[in-house]
Amino acid sequence: MTRFRLTVEFDGRPYMGWQRQPHGPSVQAAIEAAVLAITREPAAVTAAGRTDAGVHAEAMTAHVDIARPFDPFRLGEGLNALLRPQPVAILSTVAVADDWHARFSCIGRRYRYRIVNRRAPLALDAGRAWHVRAPLDTDAMAAAARVLVGRHDFTTFRSAHCQADSPVRTLERLELTATADGIDIHAEARSFLHHQVRSMVGCLMLVGRGRWSVADMADALEARDRTRLGLNAPPDGLYFTGAVYPD
Amino acid sequence: MTRFRLTVEFDGRPYMGWQRQPHGPSVQAAIEAAVLAITREPAAVTAAGRTDAGVHAEAMTAHVDIARPFDPFRLGEGLNALLRPQPVAILSTVAVADDWHARFSCIGRRYRYRIVNRRAPLALDAGRAWHVRAPLDTDAMAAAARVLVGRHDFTTFRSAHCQADSPVRTLERLELTATADGIDIHAEARSFLHHQVRSMVGCLMLVGRGRWSVADMADALEARDRTRLGLNAPPDGLYFTGAVYPD
Repeated sequence: MTRFRLTVEFDGRPYMGWQRQPHGPSVQAAIEAAVLAITREPAAVTAAGRTDAGVHAEAMTAHVDIARPFDPFRLGEGLNALLRPQPVAILSTVAVADDWHARFSCIGRRYRYRIVNRRAPLALDAGRAWHVRAPLDTDAMAAAARVLVGRHDFTTFRSAHCQADSPVRTLERLELTATADGIDIHAEARSFLHHQVRSMVGCLMLVGRGRWSVADMADALEARDRTRLGLNAPPDGLYFTGAVYPD
Repeated sequence: MTRFRLTVEFDGRPYMGWQRQPHGPSVQAAIEAAVLAITREPAAVTAAGRTDAGVHAEAMTAHVDIARPFDPFRLGEGLNALLRPQPVAILSTVAVADDWHARFSCIGRRYRYRIVNRRAPLALDAGRAWHVRAPLDTDAMAAAARVLVGRHDFTTFRSAHCQADSPVRTLERLELTATADGIDIHAEARSFLHHQVRSMVGCLMLVGRGRWSVADMADALEARDRTRLGLNAPPDGLYFTGAVYPD
Protein backbone atom coordinates (compact mmCIF):
# COMPACT_ATOMS: atom_id res chain seq x y z
CA MET A 1 0.00 0.00 0.00
CA THR A 2 1.20 3.48 -0.82
CA ARG A 3 -0.32 6.69 0.48
CA PHE A 4 -0.40 9.54 -2.04
CA ARG A 5 -0.78 13.19 -1.19
CA LEU A 6 -2.82 15.07 -3.80
CA THR A 7 -3.07 18.82 -4.29
CA VAL A 8 -6.41 19.61 -5.90
CA GLU A 9 -7.83 22.69 -7.63
CA PHE A 10 -11.56 22.82 -8.23
CA ASP A 11 -14.40 25.09 -9.22
CA GLY A 12 -17.06 24.41 -6.59
CA ARG A 13 -20.08 25.47 -8.63
CA PRO A 14 -21.21 22.07 -9.95
CA TYR A 15 -20.72 20.29 -6.63
CA MET A 16 -22.64 19.75 -3.40
CA GLY A 17 -19.28 20.37 -1.71
CA TRP A 18 -16.13 18.38 -1.11
CA GLN A 19 -17.77 15.49 0.74
CA ARG A 20 -19.50 12.52 -0.90
CA GLN A 21 -23.29 12.93 -0.80
CA PRO A 22 -26.05 10.50 -1.65
CA HIS A 23 -28.07 13.17 -3.49
CA GLY A 24 -25.61 14.94 -5.78
CA PRO A 25 -22.11 15.30 -7.21
CA SER A 26 -19.14 16.03 -4.96
CA VAL A 27 -15.46 16.66 -5.53
CA GLN A 28 -14.56 13.68 -3.36
CA ALA A 29 -16.79 11.30 -5.35
CA ALA A 30 -15.38 12.61 -8.64
CA ILE A 31 -11.80 11.89 -7.54
CA GLU A 32 -12.73 8.54 -5.97
CA ALA A 33 -14.39 7.46 -9.24
CA ALA A 34 -11.21 8.38 -11.14
CA VAL A 35 -9.07 6.42 -8.64
CA LEU A 36 -11.36 3.40 -8.97
CA ALA A 37 -11.14 3.54 -12.77
CA ILE A 38 -7.34 3.52 -12.61
CA THR A 39 -6.65 1.12 -9.75
CA ARG A 40 -9.74 -1.13 -9.97
CA GLU A 41 -10.04 -0.86 -6.20
CA PRO A 42 -12.42 1.38 -4.25
CA ALA A 43 -10.50 3.94 -2.19
CA ALA A 44 -11.51 6.79 0.10
CA VAL A 45 -10.00 10.20 -0.59
CA THR A 46 -9.54 12.25 2.59
CA ALA A 47 -9.11 16.05 2.49
CA ALA A 48 -7.69 18.67 4.86
CA GLY A 49 -11.04 20.47 4.83
CA ARG A 50 -14.60 19.72 3.80
CA THR A 51 -15.75 22.68 1.75
CA ASP A 52 -19.44 23.51 1.29
CA ALA A 53 -21.44 23.55 -1.94
CA GLY A 54 -20.18 26.24 -4.31
CA VAL A 55 -16.91 26.82 -2.44
CA HIS A 56 -13.78 26.65 -4.58
CA ALA A 57 -10.21 25.47 -3.99
CA GLU A 58 -6.97 26.76 -5.42
CA ALA A 59 -5.04 24.09 -3.53
CA MET A 60 -6.90 21.56 -1.40
CA THR A 61 -4.70 18.82 0.06
CA ALA A 62 -5.99 15.24 0.19
CA HIS A 63 -4.64 11.72 0.49
CA VAL A 64 -5.56 8.33 -0.89
CA ASP A 65 -4.18 4.82 -0.23
CA ILE A 66 -3.53 2.57 -3.21
CA ALA A 67 -2.57 -1.11 -2.84
CA ARG A 68 -0.88 -1.62 -6.22
CA PRO A 69 2.42 0.20 -6.86
CA PHE A 70 1.97 3.35 -8.90
CA ASP A 71 4.31 6.02 -10.19
CA PRO A 72 3.06 9.30 -8.63
CA PHE A 73 3.44 11.28 -11.86
CA ARG A 74 1.54 8.69 -13.91
CA LEU A 75 -1.16 8.47 -11.24
CA GLY A 76 -1.69 12.25 -11.36
CA GLU A 77 -1.77 12.25 -15.17
CA GLY A 78 -4.25 9.39 -15.19
CA LEU A 79 -6.53 11.05 -12.64
CA ASN A 80 -6.55 14.28 -14.63
CA ALA A 81 -7.36 12.43 -17.86
CA LEU A 82 -10.29 10.69 -16.18
CA LEU A 83 -11.56 13.81 -14.39
CA ARG A 84 -11.84 15.77 -17.64
CA PRO A 85 -14.02 17.73 -18.46
CA GLN A 86 -15.01 18.23 -14.83
CA PRO A 87 -13.51 21.36 -13.20
CA VAL A 88 -11.25 19.35 -10.88
CA ALA A 89 -7.49 19.23 -11.47
CA ILE A 90 -4.80 17.29 -9.60
CA LEU A 91 -1.95 19.81 -9.33
CA SER A 92 0.55 17.42 -7.74
CA THR A 93 0.81 13.80 -6.60
CA VAL A 94 3.47 12.75 -4.08
CA ALA A 95 4.06 9.45 -2.25
CA VAL A 96 4.08 10.07 1.51
CA ALA A 97 4.56 8.06 4.71
CA ASP A 98 1.72 5.74 5.68
CA ASP A 99 1.04 7.72 8.85
CA TRP A 100 0.83 11.10 7.10
CA HIS A 101 -2.80 12.26 7.11
CA ALA A 102 -4.27 15.10 5.01
CA ARG A 103 -6.68 16.02 7.79
CA PHE A 104 -5.03 15.01 11.08
CA SER A 105 -1.48 16.05 10.13
CA CYS A 106 -2.71 19.47 9.00
CA ILE A 107 -1.69 22.31 11.33
CA GLY A 108 -3.05 25.23 9.32
CA ARG A 109 -5.85 26.03 6.88
CA ARG A 110 -5.93 29.10 4.66
CA TYR A 111 -8.89 30.63 2.92
CA ARG A 112 -9.36 33.66 0.71
CA TYR A 113 -12.73 35.35 0.32
CA ARG A 114 -13.19 37.49 -2.81
CA ILE A 115 -15.56 40.45 -2.79
CA VAL A 116 -16.18 42.46 -5.95
CA ASN A 117 -17.48 45.85 -4.88
CA ARG A 118 -19.21 47.64 -7.74
CA ARG A 119 -22.64 48.57 -9.02
CA ALA A 120 -22.66 46.42 -12.18
CA PRO A 121 -23.35 42.68 -12.04
CA LEU A 122 -20.50 40.19 -12.49
CA ALA A 123 -19.97 38.84 -16.00
CA LEU A 124 -16.46 37.39 -15.79
CA ASP A 125 -16.66 36.51 -12.08
CA ALA A 126 -20.24 35.28 -11.73
CA GLY A 127 -20.26 32.47 -9.14
CA ARG A 128 -16.64 33.18 -8.28
CA ALA A 129 -16.88 36.21 -6.02
CA TRP A 130 -19.43 37.89 -3.75
CA HIS A 131 -20.97 40.80 -5.61
CA VAL A 132 -21.55 43.69 -3.19
CA ARG A 133 -23.11 46.83 -4.66
CA ALA A 134 -23.01 49.20 -1.67
CA PRO A 135 -19.85 51.20 -0.94
CA LEU A 136 -17.79 49.66 1.86
CA ASP A 137 -15.89 51.25 4.73
CA THR A 138 -12.82 49.04 4.52
CA ASP A 139 -11.09 50.72 7.47
CA ALA A 140 -13.98 49.77 9.72
CA MET A 141 -13.97 46.24 8.28
CA ALA A 142 -10.24 45.90 8.99
CA ALA A 143 -10.78 47.09 12.58
CA ALA A 144 -13.64 44.62 13.05
CA ALA A 145 -11.49 41.83 11.61
CA ARG A 146 -8.84 42.53 14.24
CA VAL A 147 -11.48 41.99 16.96
CA LEU A 148 -11.88 38.39 15.79
CA VAL A 149 -8.19 37.49 15.56
CA GLY A 150 -6.90 35.36 18.43
CA ARG A 151 -8.24 32.56 20.63
CA HIS A 152 -12.01 32.86 21.13
CA ASP A 153 -15.21 30.92 21.56
CA PHE A 154 -16.63 31.34 18.03
CA THR A 155 -20.10 29.93 18.80
CA THR A 156 -21.72 33.00 17.18
CA PHE A 157 -19.97 32.21 13.88
CA ARG A 158 -20.72 28.50 13.86
CA SER A 159 -23.31 26.65 11.82
CA ALA A 160 -26.02 24.66 13.62
CA HIS A 161 -24.61 21.62 11.78
CA CYS A 162 -21.09 22.05 13.10
CA GLN A 163 -19.78 18.77 14.52
CA ALA A 164 -16.69 20.11 16.29
CA ASP A 165 -16.32 19.19 19.98
CA SER A 166 -15.33 22.70 21.01
CA PRO A 167 -16.33 26.14 19.64
CA VAL A 168 -12.95 27.55 20.70
CA ARG A 169 -10.57 28.27 17.84
CA THR A 170 -7.43 30.37 17.42
CA LEU A 171 -7.79 32.65 14.41
CA GLU A 172 -4.24 33.41 13.32
CA ARG A 173 -5.12 35.83 10.53
CA LEU A 174 -8.15 37.74 9.28
CA GLU A 175 -6.93 40.48 7.01
CA LEU A 176 -8.22 42.60 4.14
CA THR A 177 -6.24 43.38 1.02
CA ALA A 178 -7.42 45.70 -1.74
CA THR A 179 -7.90 44.24 -5.22
CA ALA A 180 -8.53 45.91 -8.58
CA ASP A 181 -12.30 45.76 -8.10
CA GLY A 182 -12.88 45.03 -4.44
CA ILE A 183 -11.44 43.26 -1.43
CA ASP A 184 -9.85 39.93 -0.62
CA ILE A 185 -10.23 38.71 2.96
CA HIS A 186 -7.52 36.27 4.07
CA ALA A 187 -8.29 33.88 6.92
CA GLU A 188 -5.93 31.41 8.57
CA ALA A 189 -6.31 29.09 11.55
CA ARG A 190 -5.27 25.61 12.61
CA SER A 191 -8.90 24.69 11.97
CA PHE A 192 -12.22 26.44 11.47
CA LEU A 193 -15.73 25.72 12.64
CA HIS A 194 -18.39 24.90 10.05
CA HIS A 195 -19.37 28.11 8.19
CA GLN A 196 -16.95 30.15 10.32
CA VAL A 197 -15.21 31.96 7.46
CA ARG A 198 -18.45 32.79 5.65
CA SER A 199 -20.05 33.92 8.91
CA MET A 200 -17.13 36.19 9.79
CA VAL A 201 -17.11 37.64 6.27
CA GLY A 202 -20.87 38.22 6.36
CA CYS A 203 -20.56 40.20 9.60
CA LEU A 204 -17.56 42.14 8.27
CA MET A 205 -19.80 43.16 5.39
CA LEU A 206 -22.37 44.56 7.83
CA VAL A 207 -19.59 46.63 9.37
CA GLY A 208 -18.43 47.76 5.91
CA ARG A 209 -21.94 48.95 5.07
CA GLY A 210 -22.27 50.81 8.37
CA ARG A 211 -25.04 48.58 9.73
CA TRP A 212 -22.78 47.21 12.45
CA SER A 213 -20.12 49.09 14.40
CA VAL A 214 -16.82 47.52 15.41
CA ALA A 215 -18.31 47.30 18.91
CA ASP A 216 -21.27 45.32 17.51
CA MET A 217 -18.79 42.78 16.15
CA ALA A 218 -17.14 42.52 19.56
CA ASP A 219 -20.55 42.12 21.20
CA ALA A 220 -21.57 39.39 18.74
CA LEU A 221 -18.37 37.46 19.44
CA GLU A 222 -18.77 37.93 23.19
CA ALA A 223 -22.40 36.76 23.08
CA ARG A 224 -21.41 33.21 21.98
CA ASP A 225 -24.87 32.88 20.52
CA ARG A 226 -25.66 31.69 17.00
CA THR A 227 -28.77 33.85 16.86
CA ARG A 228 -26.52 36.93 17.05
CA LEU A 229 -24.94 36.11 13.69
CA GLY A 230 -25.56 39.03 11.35
CA LEU A 231 -25.14 37.49 7.93
CA ASN A 232 -23.61 34.44 6.29
CA ALA A 233 -21.63 35.30 3.14
CA PRO A 234 -22.46 33.23 0.01
CA PRO A 235 -20.10 30.39 -0.99
CA ASP A 236 -19.26 32.05 -4.36
CA GLY A 237 -16.35 34.11 -3.02
CA LEU A 238 -14.70 31.46 -0.84
CA TYR A 239 -11.49 29.68 -1.92
CA PHE A 240 -9.53 27.12 0.08
CA THR A 241 -6.01 28.29 -0.73
CA GLY A 242 -3.75 26.00 1.26
CA ALA A 243 -3.21 23.44 3.98
CA VAL A 244 -0.12 23.70 6.17
CA TYR A 245 1.83 20.66 7.44
CA PRO A 246 4.73 20.36 9.88
CA ASP A 247 7.32 19.40 7.23
CA MET B 1 -31.78 61.38 -29.95
CA THR B 2 -29.08 60.76 -27.36
CA ARG B 3 -25.95 58.75 -27.95
CA PHE B 4 -24.83 56.66 -24.98
CA ARG B 5 -21.38 55.27 -24.44
CA LEU B 6 -21.41 51.86 -22.78
CA THR B 7 -18.54 50.05 -21.10
CA VAL B 8 -19.19 46.32 -21.29
CA GLU B 9 -17.68 43.30 -19.53
CA PHE B 10 -18.43 39.87 -20.94
CA ASP B 11 -17.43 36.23 -20.78
CA GLY B 12 -17.05 35.23 -24.43
CA ARG B 13 -17.66 31.50 -24.00
CA PRO B 14 -21.39 31.33 -24.83
CA TYR B 15 -21.12 33.69 -27.81
CA MET B 16 -20.19 33.51 -31.50
CA GLY B 17 -18.31 36.73 -30.84
CA TRP B 18 -19.23 40.38 -30.45
CA GLN B 19 -20.98 40.77 -33.80
CA ARG B 20 -24.58 39.82 -34.52
CA GLN B 21 -24.76 36.50 -36.40
CA PRO B 22 -27.67 34.76 -38.08
CA HIS B 23 -26.64 31.35 -36.71
CA GLY B 24 -25.96 31.89 -33.02
CA PRO B 25 -25.85 34.17 -29.96
CA SER B 26 -23.64 37.25 -29.91
CA VAL B 27 -22.85 39.92 -27.33
CA GLN B 28 -24.13 42.62 -29.68
CA ALA B 29 -27.49 40.88 -30.18
CA ALA B 30 -27.85 40.34 -26.42
CA ILE B 31 -27.37 44.06 -25.70
CA GLU B 32 -29.55 45.13 -28.65
CA ALA B 33 -32.37 42.90 -27.39
CA ALA B 34 -32.11 44.53 -23.96
CA VAL B 35 -32.15 48.02 -25.52
CA LEU B 36 -35.22 47.11 -27.57
CA ALA B 37 -37.00 45.81 -24.47
CA ILE B 38 -36.37 49.08 -22.64
CA THR B 39 -36.87 51.65 -25.41
CA ARG B 40 -39.33 49.79 -27.67
CA GLU B 41 -37.22 50.88 -30.63
CA PRO B 42 -34.68 48.74 -32.51
CA ALA B 43 -31.17 50.18 -32.13
CA ALA B 44 -27.75 49.12 -33.36
CA VAL B 45 -24.97 48.83 -30.78
CA THR B 46 -21.53 49.65 -32.22
CA ALA B 47 -18.31 48.54 -30.51
CA ALA B 48 -14.68 49.65 -30.61
CA GLY B 49 -13.67 46.13 -31.64
CA ARG B 50 -15.34 43.01 -32.94
CA THR B 51 -14.08 40.14 -30.84
CA ASP B 52 -14.16 36.52 -32.05
CA ALA B 53 -16.07 33.61 -30.58
CA GLY B 54 -14.82 32.76 -27.10
CA VAL B 55 -12.88 36.01 -26.65
CA HIS B 56 -13.66 37.93 -23.45
CA ALA B 57 -13.81 41.60 -22.52
CA GLU B 58 -12.97 43.32 -19.27
CA ALA B 59 -13.99 46.68 -20.74
CA MET B 60 -15.31 46.86 -24.29
CA THR B 61 -16.56 50.30 -25.33
CA ALA B 62 -19.71 50.61 -27.43
CA HIS B 63 -22.34 53.20 -28.29
CA VAL B 64 -26.06 53.19 -28.97
CA ASP B 65 -28.49 55.93 -30.09
CA ILE B 66 -31.81 56.19 -28.31
CA ALA B 67 -34.60 58.53 -29.47
CA ARG B 68 -36.48 58.89 -26.18
CA PRO B 69 -34.78 60.74 -23.35
CA PHE B 70 -33.22 58.41 -20.79
CA ASP B 71 -31.26 58.88 -17.61
CA PRO B 72 -27.89 57.18 -18.20
CA PHE B 73 -27.79 55.54 -14.78
CA ARG B 74 -31.31 54.14 -15.14
CA LEU B 75 -30.56 52.95 -18.67
CA GLY B 76 -27.52 51.03 -17.43
CA GLU B 77 -29.46 49.51 -14.53
CA GLY B 78 -32.26 48.50 -16.87
CA LEU B 79 -29.90 46.91 -19.37
CA ASN B 80 -28.19 44.91 -16.63
CA ALA B 81 -31.53 43.72 -15.25
CA LEU B 82 -32.58 42.53 -18.71
CA LEU B 83 -29.22 40.95 -19.56
CA ARG B 84 -29.26 38.75 -16.46
CA PRO B 85 -28.34 35.86 -16.23
CA GLN B 86 -26.21 36.20 -19.34
CA PRO B 87 -22.51 36.90 -18.64
CA VAL B 88 -22.68 40.44 -20.03
CA ALA B 89 -22.52 43.45 -17.69
CA ILE B 90 -22.80 47.15 -18.48
CA LEU B 91 -20.11 48.72 -16.28
CA SER B 92 -20.94 52.33 -17.13
CA THR B 93 -23.39 54.34 -19.23
CA VAL B 94 -22.57 57.93 -20.21
CA ALA B 95 -24.35 60.37 -22.56
CA VAL B 96 -21.89 61.58 -25.23
CA ALA B 97 -21.87 63.95 -28.21
CA ASP B 98 -23.77 62.79 -31.29
CA ASP B 99 -20.59 62.67 -33.34
CA TRP B 100 -18.66 60.56 -30.84
CA HIS B 101 -18.20 57.06 -32.26
CA ALA B 102 -17.10 53.95 -30.34
CA ARG B 103 -15.26 52.61 -33.38
CA PHE B 104 -14.19 55.63 -35.44
CA SER B 105 -13.27 57.89 -32.51
CA CYS B 106 -11.13 55.12 -30.98
CA ILE B 107 -7.40 55.79 -31.17
CA GLY B 108 -6.13 52.78 -29.23
CA ARG B 109 -7.14 49.19 -28.46
CA ARG B 110 -5.67 47.12 -25.63
CA TYR B 111 -5.72 43.39 -25.22
CA ARG B 112 -4.37 41.03 -22.61
CA TYR B 113 -3.63 37.40 -23.41
CA ARG B 114 -3.50 35.01 -20.42
CA ILE B 115 -1.34 31.90 -20.53
CA VAL B 116 -1.35 29.40 -17.66
CA ASN B 117 1.87 27.43 -17.87
CA ARG B 118 1.66 24.22 -15.88
CA ARG B 119 1.30 20.48 -16.30
CA ALA B 120 -2.15 20.08 -14.69
CA PRO B 121 -5.35 20.95 -16.56
CA LEU B 122 -7.26 24.12 -15.68
CA ALA B 123 -10.12 23.75 -13.22
CA LEU B 124 -10.72 27.36 -12.13
CA ASP B 125 -9.59 28.92 -15.43
CA ALA B 126 -10.98 26.50 -17.99
CA GLY B 127 -12.02 28.52 -21.06
CA ARG B 128 -10.45 31.65 -19.58
CA ALA B 129 -6.75 31.14 -20.32
CA TRP B 130 -4.56 29.22 -22.74
CA HIS B 131 -3.30 26.11 -21.01
CA VAL B 132 0.29 25.44 -22.08
CA ARG B 133 1.99 22.39 -20.57
CA ALA B 134 5.52 22.70 -21.94
CA PRO B 135 8.07 24.90 -20.12
CA LEU B 136 8.49 28.28 -21.82
CA ASP B 137 11.60 30.36 -22.47
CA THR B 138 10.09 33.72 -21.57
CA ASP B 139 13.28 35.67 -22.30
CA ALA B 140 13.20 34.42 -25.90
CA MET B 141 9.48 35.23 -26.09
CA ALA B 142 10.11 38.78 -24.87
CA ALA B 143 12.87 39.23 -27.46
CA ALA B 144 10.60 37.93 -30.23
CA ALA B 145 7.81 40.25 -29.05
CA ARG B 146 10.15 43.23 -29.46
CA VAL B 147 10.68 42.22 -33.12
CA LEU B 148 6.98 42.80 -33.78
CA VAL B 149 6.64 46.18 -32.06
CA GLY B 150 6.52 49.15 -34.42
CA ARG B 151 5.07 49.90 -37.85
CA HIS B 152 5.01 46.78 -40.04
CA ASP B 153 3.12 44.98 -42.76
CA PHE B 154 1.44 42.29 -40.60
CA THR B 155 0.13 40.16 -43.49
CA THR B 156 1.65 37.02 -41.92
CA PHE B 157 -0.43 37.57 -38.77
CA ARG B 158 -3.71 38.31 -40.55
CA SER B 159 -6.71 36.06 -40.99
CA ALA B 160 -7.87 35.19 -44.52
CA HIS B 161 -11.16 36.84 -43.54
CA CYS B 162 -9.60 40.16 -42.59
CA GLN B 163 -11.47 43.05 -44.22
CA ALA B 164 -8.96 45.82 -43.52
CA ASP B 165 -7.79 47.86 -46.52
CA SER B 166 -4.15 47.78 -45.49
CA PRO B 167 -2.10 45.12 -43.65
CA VAL B 168 0.14 47.85 -42.20
CA ARG B 169 -0.32 48.50 -38.50
CA THR B 170 1.69 50.20 -35.78
CA LEU B 171 2.04 47.90 -32.79
CA GLU B 172 2.66 50.19 -29.82
CA ARG B 173 3.14 47.49 -27.22
CA LEU B 174 3.65 43.74 -27.08
CA GLU B 175 5.00 42.87 -23.68
CA LEU B 176 5.11 39.90 -21.32
CA THR B 177 4.49 40.10 -17.60
CA ALA B 178 4.86 37.17 -15.21
CA THR B 179 1.76 36.02 -13.32
CA ALA B 180 1.38 33.59 -10.41
CA ASP B 181 0.92 30.64 -12.76
CA GLY B 182 2.10 31.78 -16.18
CA ILE B 183 2.36 34.82 -18.43
CA ASP B 184 0.19 37.73 -19.49
CA ILE B 185 0.93 39.22 -22.91
CA HIS B 186 -0.16 42.85 -23.30
CA ALA B 187 -0.84 44.18 -26.80
CA GLU B 188 -1.72 47.74 -27.78
CA ALA B 189 -2.22 49.42 -31.16
CA ARG B 190 -4.47 52.02 -32.77
CA SER B 191 -6.12 49.04 -34.45
CA PHE B 192 -5.41 45.37 -35.11
CA LEU B 193 -5.94 43.12 -38.11
CA HIS B 194 -8.35 40.22 -37.76
CA HIS B 195 -6.73 37.48 -35.61
CA GLN B 196 -3.56 39.56 -35.25
CA VAL B 197 -3.21 39.26 -31.47
CA ARG B 198 -3.93 35.53 -31.43
CA SER B 199 -1.55 34.97 -34.35
CA MET B 200 1.25 36.92 -32.69
CA VAL B 201 0.70 35.06 -29.39
CA GLY B 202 0.67 31.70 -31.20
CA CYS B 203 4.04 32.43 -32.79
CA LEU B 204 5.46 33.73 -29.49
CA MET B 205 4.50 30.36 -28.02
CA LEU B 206 6.57 28.59 -30.70
CA VAL B 207 9.51 30.74 -29.68
CA GLY B 208 8.88 29.99 -26.01
CA ARG B 209 8.93 26.26 -26.70
CA GLY B 210 12.15 26.53 -28.70
CA ARG B 211 10.54 25.53 -32.01
CA TRP B 212 11.12 28.98 -33.47
CA SER B 213 14.10 31.26 -32.89
CA VAL B 214 13.78 35.02 -32.57
CA ALA B 215 15.16 35.16 -36.14
CA ASP B 216 12.32 32.88 -37.30
CA MET B 217 9.85 35.42 -35.94
CA ALA B 218 11.62 38.21 -37.84
CA ASP B 219 11.60 36.09 -41.01
CA ALA B 220 7.90 35.33 -40.65
CA LEU B 221 7.10 39.03 -40.27
CA GLU B 222 9.34 39.94 -43.20
CA ALA B 223 7.76 37.27 -45.42
CA ARG B 224 4.33 39.02 -45.39
CA ASP B 225 2.80 35.65 -46.15
CA ARG B 226 -0.13 34.12 -44.27
CA THR B 227 1.15 30.60 -44.95
CA ARG B 228 4.20 31.42 -42.80
CA LEU B 229 2.03 31.82 -39.70
CA GLY B 230 3.22 29.31 -37.12
CA LEU B 231 0.21 28.96 -34.85
CA ASN B 232 -2.98 30.77 -33.94
CA ALA B 233 -3.57 30.94 -30.17
CA PRO B 234 -7.04 29.83 -28.96
CA PRO B 235 -9.60 32.51 -28.04
CA ASP B 236 -9.80 31.33 -24.41
CA GLY B 237 -6.93 33.51 -23.17
CA LEU B 238 -7.82 36.74 -24.99
CA TYR B 239 -9.38 39.71 -23.18
CA PHE B 240 -10.24 43.09 -24.69
CA THR B 241 -9.13 45.33 -21.82
CA GLY B 242 -9.71 48.84 -23.07
CA ALA B 243 -10.42 51.31 -25.86
CA VAL B 244 -8.60 54.65 -25.86
CA TYR B 245 -10.25 57.93 -26.98
CA PRO B 246 -8.84 61.42 -27.48
CA ASP B 247 -10.61 62.95 -24.45
